[in-house]
Amino acid sequence: MSDLFTHPWMSGLFGDPDTNAALGADKQLAQMLMVERAYTMARLAVGDIEKADADAVCDVLDNVQLTPEELTAGVTQDGLVVPAMIRLLKAQLPQEHHHALHVGLTSQDVIDTALVLSLRPVLDDFAARLDTLDNDLCALSARHGSNPLMGRTRMQAALPITVADRIATWQMPLASHRDRLRRSAQAVIVLSIGGPVGIRMNDDIAAGMAQMLGLQLPAKAPHTMRADLADLANTLSLVTGTLGKFGQDVALMAQQGIESIQLSGGGSSSAMAHKNNPIVAELLVTLAGYNATQLPAMHHAIVHEQERSGAAWALEWMTLPDMLRATGASLRNAIQLVGQVTYIGDRADASLSR
Amino acid sequence: MSDLFTHPWMSGLFGDPDTNAALGADKQLAQMLMVERAYTMARLAVGDIEKADADAVCDVLDNVQLTPEELTAGVTQDGLVVPAMIRLLKAQLPQEHHHALHVGLTSQDVIDTALVLSLRPVLDDFAARLDTLDNDLCALSARHGSNPLMGRTRMQAALPITVADRIATWQMPLASHRDRLRRSAQAVIVLSIGGPVGIRMNDDIAAGMAQMLGLQLPAKAPHTMRADLADLANTLSLVTGTLGKFGQDVALMAQQGIESIQLSGGGSSSAMAHKNNPIVAELLVTLAGYNATQLPAMHHAIVHEQERSGAAWALEWMTLPDMLRATGASLRNAIQLVGQVTYIGDRADASLSR
Amino acid sequence: MSDLFTHPWMSGLFGDPDTNAALGADKQLAQMLMVERAYTMARLAVGDIEKADADAVCDVLDNVQLTPEELTAGVTQDGLVVPAMIRLLKAQLPQEHHHALHVGLTSQDVIDTALVLSLRPVLDDFAARLDTLDNDLCALSARHGSNPLMGRTRMQAALPITVADRIATWQMPLASHRDRLRRSAQAVIVLSIGGPVGIRMNDDIAAGMAQMLGLQLPAKAPHTMRADLADLANTLSLVTGTLGKFGQDVALMAQQGIESIQLSGGGSSSAMAHKNNPIVAELLVTLAGYNATQLPAMHHAIVHEQERSGAAWALEWMTLPDMLRATGASLRNAIQLVGQVTYIGDRADASLSR
Amino acid sequence: MSDLFTHPWMSGLFGDPDTNAALGADKQLAQMLMVERAYTMARLAVGDIEKADADAVCDVLDNVQLTPEELTAGVTQDGLVVPAMIRLLKAQLPQEHHHALHVGLTSQDVIDTALVLSLRPVLDDFAARLDTLDNDLCALSARHGSNPLMGRTRMQAALPITVADRIATWQMPLASHRDRLRRSAQAVIVLSIGGPVGIRMNDDIAAGMAQMLGLQLPAKAPHTMRADLADLANTLSLVTGTLGKFGQDVALMAQQGIESIQLSGGGSSSAMAHKNNPIVAELLVTLAGYNATQLPAMHHAIVHEQERSGAAWALEWMTLPDMLRATGASLRNAIQLVGQVTYIGDRADASLSR
Repeated sequence: MSDLFTHPWMSGLFGDPDTNAALGADKQLAQMLMVERAYTMARLAVGDIEKADADAVCDVLDNVQLTPEELTAGVTQDGLVVPAMIRLLKAQLPQEHHHALHVGLTSQDVIDTALVLSLRPVLDDFAARLDTLDNDLCALSARHGSNPLMGRTRMQAALPITVADRIATWQMPLASHRDRLRRSAQAVIVLSIGGPVGIRMNDDIAAGMAQMLGLQLPAKAPHTMRADLADLANTLSLVTGTLGKFGQDVALMAQQGIESIQLSGGGSSSAMAHKNNPIVAELLVTLAGYNATQLPAMHHAIVHEQERSGAAWALEWMTLPDMLRATGASLRNAIQLVGQVTYIGDRADASLSR
Repeated sequence: MSDLFTHPWMSGLFGDPDTNAALGADKQLAQMLMVERAYTMARLAVGDIEKADADAVCDVLDNVQLTPEELTAGVTQDGLVVPAMIRLLKAQLPQEHHHALHVGLTSQDVIDTALVLSLRPVLDDFAARLDTLDNDLCALSARHGSNPLMGRTRMQAALPITVADRIATWQMPLASHRDRLRRSAQAVIVLSIGGPVGIRMNDDIAAGMAQMLGLQLPAKAPHTMRADLADLANTLSLVTGTLGKFGQDVALMAQQGIESIQLSGGGSSSAMAHKNNPIVAELLVTLAGYNATQLPAMHHAIVHEQERSGAAWALEWMTLPDMLRATGASLRNAIQLVGQVTYIGDRADASLSR
Repeated sequence: MSDLFTHPWMSGLFGDPDTNAALGADKQLAQMLMVERAYTMARLAVGDIEKADADAVCDVLDNVQLTPEELTAGVTQDGLVVPAMIRLLKAQLPQEHHHALHVGLTSQDVIDTALVLSLRPVLDDFAARLDTLDNDLCALSARHGSNPLMGRTRMQAALPITVADRIATWQMPLASHRDRLRRSAQAVIVLSIGGPVGIRMNDDIAAGMAQMLGLQLPAKAPHTMRADLADLANTLSLVTGTLGKFGQDVALMAQQGIESIQLSGGGSSSAMAHKNNPIVAELLVTLAGYNATQLPAMHHAIVHEQERSGAAWALEWMTLPDMLRATGASLRNAIQLVGQVTYIGDRADASLSR
Repeated sequence: MSDLFTHPWMSGLFGDPDTNAALGADKQLAQMLMVERAYTMARLAVGDIEKADADAVCDVLDNVQLTPEELTAGVTQDGLVVPAMIRLLKAQLPQEHHHALHVGLTSQDVIDTALVLSLRPVLDDFAARLDTLDNDLCALSARHGSNPLMGRTRMQAALPITVADRIATWQMPLASHRDRLRRSAQAVIVLSIGGPVGIRMNDDIAAGMAQMLGLQLPAKAPHTMRADLADLANTLSLVTGTLGKFGQDVALMAQQGIESIQLSGGGSSSAMAHKNNPIVAELLVTLAGYNATQLPAMHHAIVHEQERSGAAWALEWMTLPDMLRATGASLRNAIQLVGQVTYIGDRADASLSR
């Protein structure tokens, strides 16, 4: 079973096309080239290189076709794609312009900045989906909210509440998550420019590059200060956790015997024609568990030794993109689930009175 | 081996006396009684009960001596301490005043509010310690910062930096952590008053109670909306993670052969008199790993079914206090470690040139 | 809130007296002294020291009273209790016998061996409780097993099964867990004797010491080979996970509307007199989540650098004892829960037919 | 950044072609069809269907071409691929033979059994690689083992050991891991045949099917008893943890100033021509951290409610295949790393004497 987010058929559930596209390898490569381009242009702007140098570099960057095969061998050799990418670019660049390409940057500058360029639209998209979900839950509450529901604590019938009371617990946290996403975006979507050991050499070049890419310029490259990225991962897991509570509640409400809702579009069974499985509700629980599970990797990676930890950095690569894809899947499915829920009455009252 | 934070002798390393005291069972009990008192007084203020009722209740609350044995039996029976506590209080309260005690509250109101009353001084203390650490690292940088240090990436000698460059990566994240602590405190240090199924019955009583306890009053009791608590746990782990990077770097810098620092007050060995172990530095790495490990429990607990999940709530109890105590220990030890570090020169340059 | 396993009143739920006692600090100290004693006696047996030396050492070991205060200061200084313990012992031992105490051992030998001496009765006890639980579930199945129950998949009514079918899924894994516990015990309950850098100096002393303590002697001290300990932690979490499924099922079966069982001895509520909360069932879910959460710490600790990692070792100390205590609590509560369950019929059939 | 195991270029490091191939979606589909085929043939063998039925079913199963697009829509609808797969198969099967396809099986039978058919060659392959690694470490020890090395505890120079002493700590755990893999394989590579609610209807069909597929037949389908799968995940993480210790040690040994080894084939830097990065060593640390992080998901999934938990089951899908792929990558890279290590002398002795 390969990666579920992009699996040939399981991606029907686990895949979020928009997030997958934004985090695709092709985008990643394009953004690394964009980072190199901005760096070269910023050097030109401060007179660090000649216009002819910049033109030559940009010509290569704009037209180069790098194949995965060429890059893979480099990764195997160097542990990172950037050295091979630069070798391949230089192979197409006249020798006299080589000094105008990448010199002064380090792989981490390129890879981390390309990452945040990918993150930017993803986080914007998530914020927009939180808005949608918020609105949809408002509408659901407007539709069904005044109906009675047996409040349940420790899964036991407690006292009557309304449907609106329960929906409120799904909806109210969303606003704070949107704020967290916005703050996380401000903290992590910054230019990483520190060179080999994290010390920025030329503030003017850095400032020009930041402006070109539309990124904030932090006081120091975050090469080894990774708490903001871990904090973003936390925000993602808070979102999926909140949607997991929504999913869990829906799955419990759909139980025969205490059902208070009906789900449209639910899953059929290969063995039982009468079943109407709360697939999407359960998936939200799964994705909450998945992101909660991944989160500590991002926190362990904060213990990032000296000026660069290959081990800690690669652990982020293995974790954060999948957390983003899980969050995209969770938001997409949660929006769908709101549309599938219909209140059909609550039968628990009678059972409580015996 | 019992709990290391309060272990008879291991607490010399793992224990933080201030945090332990603030989170002690005696404080917890006192704060639960304080919550009941504020509720009764707030009811009096709005005319919901008579002054004689309030006087009688407060008299019991102010003078009662509850023994652990009495409470333990109740916990075993009810899963929570509050029902037994109320039974014991009522046993000392004339029957005609029983309606003035606890009626309208639920166990979760009392326990969650008592928790945040405990959290308040702890989080204030942590913020103050972050300030201290920030200042101490500034001073350390002023003392040794201009000295050369071999920058190391992937543990390999890369290019020279200064001691200040490395110290900056320990210090710079602290300011954002202080902000996070402040925001977390605002979000979680609120009055929880929702009654049995999370629906506040009387806004005036709630407002009065919040004022008496000096707590914000949220729009709805956070009984089942637990993301803010998980977010606090995240902040704690970001702090210990950042201090773990500091510890890891110090342990690496203290290696013979590449050592650039000397540690005073280090650990002696039972077998090797010449050893000077970087005990505190390693402890910071351990505590970072510990908090990172605990964090997902707080995220899983966000999937808090219906109006109260006993299972999810208890998982928070098992996790958050220990994360706080680990954070206290980490901050205390980090401040100590800054005072133990002396720069003694960097010998890596020579070895690199061969 | 202090440690729940030994909390003044919360231990009514979370505490397991037998496990707590076996892992208490006093036991730990007694076992460290026993390790030193066995080492001295084994040296005597091979003629490495004189009888007078051994008598003097044993006299001190048998009669010494070490106070926590004395040890705590040493832990703060050395990061470990052993150096201070040895200093305190030597203070009572005439100088001419000092060579007969501890020389050739290292702290890790003493601490790890004392740990496994504590583990031995705990694991035996857990195996015995698995047997009890197995028998009790057999008896429960004999009592109620032939009754009908609505099989539920994805929480939805599927097809009828019997009560015995569901009980079987709680019971069948227990036998394999008992086998795992036995294998784990064989792997970890071994003598650790490697001296300062893990190299055993004298096989005869080691063999004699192993025999005195009733421990297997591995080919090499497991100072830095920690996979067997992590494997034990895994076994503990498999046990609590299996009991968590039992608890979760019981909590779901106790829901009004689909209830098929009644629970005696359940929890009352401070606010709702009619409630009968499935406290113990929920607790099993909590403890499963707790141990699953802790487990990765023991796996991260396998990456134990060079001849001893203070950071990785201390992470084990923070995790394994609590996992043991959680497992003891889970087994104790599961046995109790079996006795609380009574089948009262299954009402889901009717609801399914509509 | 998409899934690193199959990433267009990052798979040069993280990808293990053999494991990826064995777990590919095409294999998964082929094995699901093989399961259906074995079931139909086993029914024929006991006379449950006619030969004409079986021929018709097998003809479809052997020749069908299912496209991902067709399956994806079904997954979105049903949460599982099996219902759509059966619908598509039936569309090519004359109506009169429909009763001979899948009837009596459930999706979980098909998917779980297909999974273990995929696991079988993977676990065999891992066992073989553990043998290779064991032999290679033996050879490395034979080549360099008698050389001196400064033993280091808590990263500090302690006492001299030999290279063989350290290699032994990498090698000795491998034999127990091979035993664990074998035991895990015996436990999990079994036929899952329980039908809709986990109750096997016909023992003869089950026995015949098990024989055809070369699988053991457990007393009850493991639909909801998932501890053995979690135990396999634990074994995988023990393997990667042990290899992570190897990698961590190598990375520490390659530090300039204390280096005792030279690494061939190491990584070059995009910014520093003199660097020789211990890429593979660090990768082993990363993969250890990755698997340790994933493991709790498999343990949380043991709390598998009632007769099937969609949420818990899907969490396994998101975790176990990636753990297998990480283990394959770790074994492949560890074998490579052994070949890259050359002892070049240990310089720590001198530095210790100061």
